Amino acid sequence: MGPYPGWLPTSEFTRVLAGIGGTGDRCAAFAAMCRVNTLYAVMRAGSGHLGSSFSAADIVSRLLLAELRRPFTADGDLYFSSKGHDVPGLYAAMIGLGVLDEGLLHRLRRLGGLPGHPDVRTPWMPFNTGSLGMGVSKAKGLILGDRIRGRSRRVFVLTGDGELQEGQNWEALAGAAHAGLHELTVLVDHNKLQSDTWVRDVSDLGDLVAKFRAFGWGVLRCDGNDSAEVGGALRERADRFGAGPAVIIADTVKGAGCALFAATSMPEGEWRYRYHSGAPALSEYLIAHEQLVTAADEVLARHGLDPLRPVGTDLPRRAAGTAPRLPQVYGEALTALAATDERIVALDADLLLDTGLIPFAEAFPQRLVECGIAEQDMVSMAGGIASAGLLPFVHSFSCFLHARPNEHIYNNATEGRRIVYVGSLAGVLPAGPGHSHQAVRDVAAVGAVPGLLVLAPAGPAQVRAAVGFCATAEQSVYLRLESTPVPAEVAALRHPVPAPGHGVVLRPGGRTVALGAGPLVLGQLLRAADVLAAEGVDLTVVDLPWLNTVDPGWLGRLAGEADRILVVENHLGHGGHADTVARALLELDLPEPPRLRGLGVTGVPVCGTDDEALHAHGLHAEQLAAAVRAWPSSPAADRQPSRPTRRS
Amino acid sequence: MGPYPGWLPTSEFTRVLAGIGGTGDRCAAFAAMCRVNTLYAVMRAGSGHLGSSFSAADIVSRLLLAELRRPFTADGDLYFSSKGHDVPGLYAAMIGLGVLDEGLLHRLRRLGGLPGHPDVRTPWMPFNTGSLGMGVSKAKGLILGDRIRGRSRRVFVLTGDGELQEGQNWEALAGAAHAGLHELTVLVDHNKLQSDTWVRDVSDLGDLVAKFRAFGWGVLRCDGNDSAEVGGALRERADRFGAGPAVIIADTVKGAGCALFAATSMPEGEWRYRYHSGAPALSEYLIAHEQLVTAADEVLARHGLDPLRPVGTDLPRRAAGTAPRLPQVYGEALTALAATDERIVALDADLLLDTGLIPFAEAFPQRLVECGIAEQDMVSMAGGIASAGLLPFVHSFSCFLHARPNEHIYNNATEGRRIVYVGSLAGVLPAGPGHSHQAVRDVAAVGAVPGLLVLAPAGPAQVRAAVGFCATAEQSVYLRLESTPVPAEVAALRHPVPAPGHGVVLRPGGRTVALGAGPLVLGQLLRAADVLAAEGVDLTVVDLPWLNTVDPGWLGRLAGEADRILVVENHLGHGGHADTVARALLELDLPEPPRLRGLGVTGVPVCGTDDEALHAHGLHAEQLAAAVRAWPSSPAADRQPSRPTRRS
Repeated sequence: MGPYPGWLPTSEFTRVLAGIGGTGDRCAAFAAMCRVNTLYAVMRAGSGHLGSSFSAADIVSRLLLAELRRPFTADGDLYFSSKGHDVPGLYAAMIGLGVLDEGLLHRLRRLGGLPGHPDVRTPWMPFNTGSLGMGVSKAKGLILGDRIRGRSRRVFVLTGDGELQEGQNWEALAGAAHAGLHELTVLVDHNKLQSDTWVRDVSDLGDLVAKFRAFGWGVLRCDGNDSAEVGGALRERADRFGAGPAVIIADTVKGAGCALFAATSMPEGEWRYRYHSGAPALSEYLIAHEQLVTAADEVLARHGLDPLRPVGTDLPRRAAGTAPRLPQVYGEALTALAATDERIVALDADLLLDTGLIPFAEAFPQRLVECGIAEQDMVSMAGGIASAGLLPFVHSFSCFLHARPNEHIYNNATEGRRIVYVGSLAGVLPAGPGHSHQAVRDVAAVGAVPGLLVLAPAGPAQVRAAVGFCATAEQSVYLRLESTPVPAEVAALRHPVPAPGHGVVLRPGGRTVALGAGPLVLGQLLRAADVLAAEGVDLTVVDLPWLNTVDPGWLGRLAGEADRILVVENHLGHGGHADTVARALLELDLPEPPRLRGLGVTGVPVCGTDDEALHAHGLHAEQLAAAVRAWPSSPAADRQPSRPTRRS
Repeated sequence: MGPYPGWLPTSEFTRVLAGIGGTGDRCAAFAAMCRVNTLYAVMRAGSGHLGSSFSAADIVSRLLLAELRRPFTADGDLYFSSKGHDVPGLYAAMIGLGVLDEGLLHRLRRLGGLPGHPDVRTPWMPFNTGSLGMGVSKAKGLILGDRIRGRSRRVFVLTGDGELQEGQNWEALAGAAHAGLHELTVLVDHNKLQSDTWVRDVSDLGDLVAKFRAFGWGVLRCDGNDSAEVGGALRERADRFGAGPAVIIADTVKGAGCALFAATSMPEGEWRYRYHSGAPALSEYLIAHEQLVTAADEVLARHGLDPLRPVGTDLPRRAAGTAPRLPQVYGEALTALAATDERIVALDADLLLDTGLIPFAEAFPQRLVECGIAEQDMVSMAGGIASAGLLPFVHSFSCFLHARPNEHIYNNATEGRRIVYVGSLAGVLPAGPGHSHQAVRDVAAVGAVPGLLVLAPAGPAQVRAAVGFCATAEQSVYLRLESTPVPAEVAALRHPVPAPGHGVVLRPGGRTVALGAGPLVLGQLLRAADVLAAEGVDLTVVDLPWLNTVDPGWLGRLAGEADRILVVENHLGHGGHADTVARALLELDLPEPPRLRGLGVTGVPVCGTDDEALHAHGLHAEQLAAAVRAWPSSPAADRQPSRPTRRS
């Protein structure tokens, strides 16, 4: 209980559903109530996707309340969202129906709670989505699997509209028609906005009806915020297109159901939709909450039901924070450099804001190539731009940039093109969005690309230097940028980016050396060194920002002053920093090499608060200090293995 | 000079072009002559893509002779092929026009010669293609780069029809229309056959005209083996669709221009087209050569020109070879297992023959999912199939499988699905197709995927055991299969697949241990051990088939019997076998760890014969023996680095 209007328990949903007879009003009230709980959960979590959960709420309500056969049973029809970031709305609906524990509503984006994107560990969640464009393919596989096993379920997949820019969708559509997958219905949440702005301004979808038709699908269109229209379209789908797959293009409003968040309320001339992700301000929360409860109460009143009784709540206070973030520093540095270096062209895949490119877009619109959510096209285009004598900087979240166009980065390298790849949101933090957004394999996945240096700058000073390095280096560079606020210890660092393969001693100490890169690891290591210093244990902390190369001369000198080296990395164990250093250290062929251990992420990264994730993966300063303490001061004399080495 | 009819020197093309006035006949004669030289070059190389070079020959001839403005000049119009495997035909045309040295005709797929797929190191080749689906994106980038620089060139891109199954094409098409890229013309070599069989049977393209139109492109259609029709379509393209990008769907016949190779000559009921890749038999060569020369001579005669005078040639003799190949052994083993294990489902991306799946396809057509050239769709479908309680085995060449669906493999892993990925054609051999087909980053790129074991079996016995392991393991497996003939030493091995992380001593020797995996490395190491043994040097050879994990207990025992360990890998230096072993070795925390060195591929893998590539990358037995000889018997006492450690 607390001072603010909060959440609706499952019992309220039960009361309302029992008290309303008609499908239309049941869906309308249910959807409004789901929006209340979505708002509450996102507000408590401090982040999450409101706009998209709201645009889809009427579709989801209609499907779950009136259309699916035996949803949430082993053999029932399946619904899932391919875009996945609308999952807070789905959680709210599942809690409303009592198939998910209402206590989880308070644990959105928390460890052991409800992940920021769908995950199969949540009851009744069929797939991990949120990596865009995979949903239709997964549904196809499930249906073919069912057919092989002699089963039959209908599968309903929601996609975004911006999501349709991903080429995989068109791969998937072709085969589905070919195989006559009548079990499959795709609903497009056609809210016309992708993460920051209008789909038509990013990469226009053109005539979507004609596209689906050309790919052999049955196509219908309806108002996706009108439950009756959604129901009608689903009936028509069965009647007219029963022999194959069909799509319902559901025209929706992003943020629908609440005047404050609705895209239709955007001021004239405003390009940016502000409620795609992140929690609203408290004042906005209170307005929206009231709008939503009022909308529901109007329906309830028509059926003689008492108004909703949301449980009062406190809400966590969050300081705005003034710590710098690397992508923003990066974007300003790139923009400054581009004023004098006319070769620089920036490519983006629908993440202008989050990759720090807004200043560049405003200053050099003619040198910005917005590719939409089409990373493969973007990276191959960068190869073409480089072939025209320019210097492309290619941007996305690192989770996508290292993986979706992985073959394309290699292909560009085989041409010897000079290209700079800038992957932001790198590493295990923020942990709220979950594993689809946590780039913890990127160093491994691109580290072997010939001629590509992987560079992880620590703080603002290093980021600025790194931009200059990228522009003048002979090699291509993958710039690995973490996006969480830079810790004060790291923000204060003034050392430049050292030569490739070289590191910088940040804190001289004893012959135990901790080596790392990037703000998370270096911040935690500097704190761990403080903890240990208080105990009289000296720890040397070294920034080696090069993740796939080590200079043997530099390493040899470091090794001469070290008895043991701890490599800590914001990455899984294989193919990352620790492997690189270990191999290089052994190949120095020293008579008495220092001992080495690596510590990094193990297993699938967890979803939770940053602090929860740091602790879960053993990367918190206290844990790093404990690891140093627990490391025996001399090698295992009996040659027994000290720990397992399967590291991912 | 030699006994067989051979190649046409540039002077013959010059004579013919000078002697024929009309565009149609010039193109017809030129195309036929290009086919002669294509046939010769592929025959000499022993492999290469005839069918596709022939289907495109009339389009290429028309473009180069009559349509492009100043081709092969710095500011002239550009033509390139996105599918790329038709490049022998393009080389022939460039040699005919004298812009490429005719001597290179004898060096197709040879080191320093003409690569098996296009490469920018060849004069006038704008891009590295052959990784399908990238061409339209590259052309877009080039055009945007030109615009930024205030230049303008028209760009003509040839794609395959099967190639259009790749989702990237549809990413690229959308943006091109959005940006009004009037400089861009795509020609689809619509020969209706992909690598083995008919496109319609693999993944039907449906109404291709409607698809391109729906994506906002101008669309025309013509007979692509009729030069006049191609020219007419290009004029109409300029007249009708001058404001944006346009596509010409050029209907062609695979193997056109030569009755023997033409798909129209395929026997009734035959599903497999036999001339997609590979050299013909000598008897076929002679027939085809005569058909082609006759076709050209008919045109020449109409213009009063003397018949063609091909230079006589010898031709290399190639033994058929009876050595086993791992994909074929694998396919038989999988088929046998599937008879008793009904969970097994095989997914393929248009490489049934090359991944060994023909027996499976014949025995279990209902459990084969043919996805077409759509690797992302395939891997996500596998996740769906696994979610239905089945066990998917997912197949492609490793160069594609580890990279194109890289994010999808990770996504499946985050769901905890059990899936077996089978990447054939792994490693640096065969080196003839070139870097697009040489998977030398796969261990790095998938090695960090949580819960995924990377396993490289050595010979037939290990492949059979590996199939059993994959079906029963608790973890997912990436099976890395080399496709070249297995050396006799390795084919004779009878050891089973050891437990994960364990290795097997193949040849006991002294305290110098060479460790590797797969037929190439183990074959060369066993031969190197013979070479060294003759000199009195003992070398222990160990098969460690697990590429991303080492059992510390096993490694500890090996380390106890080793002074130095040489890790040899068919892979680039980062994130592979040597890194894995080095890290594990150091983390054993031994008082006196053995010394370690890694040897593997460095840089972009070369195109050439297998022997040329082995030598170029230092992986030949003689070179491995030399590396052991040259390794000082004691560590560098002065702690100076022994060699650079930037390894890729």
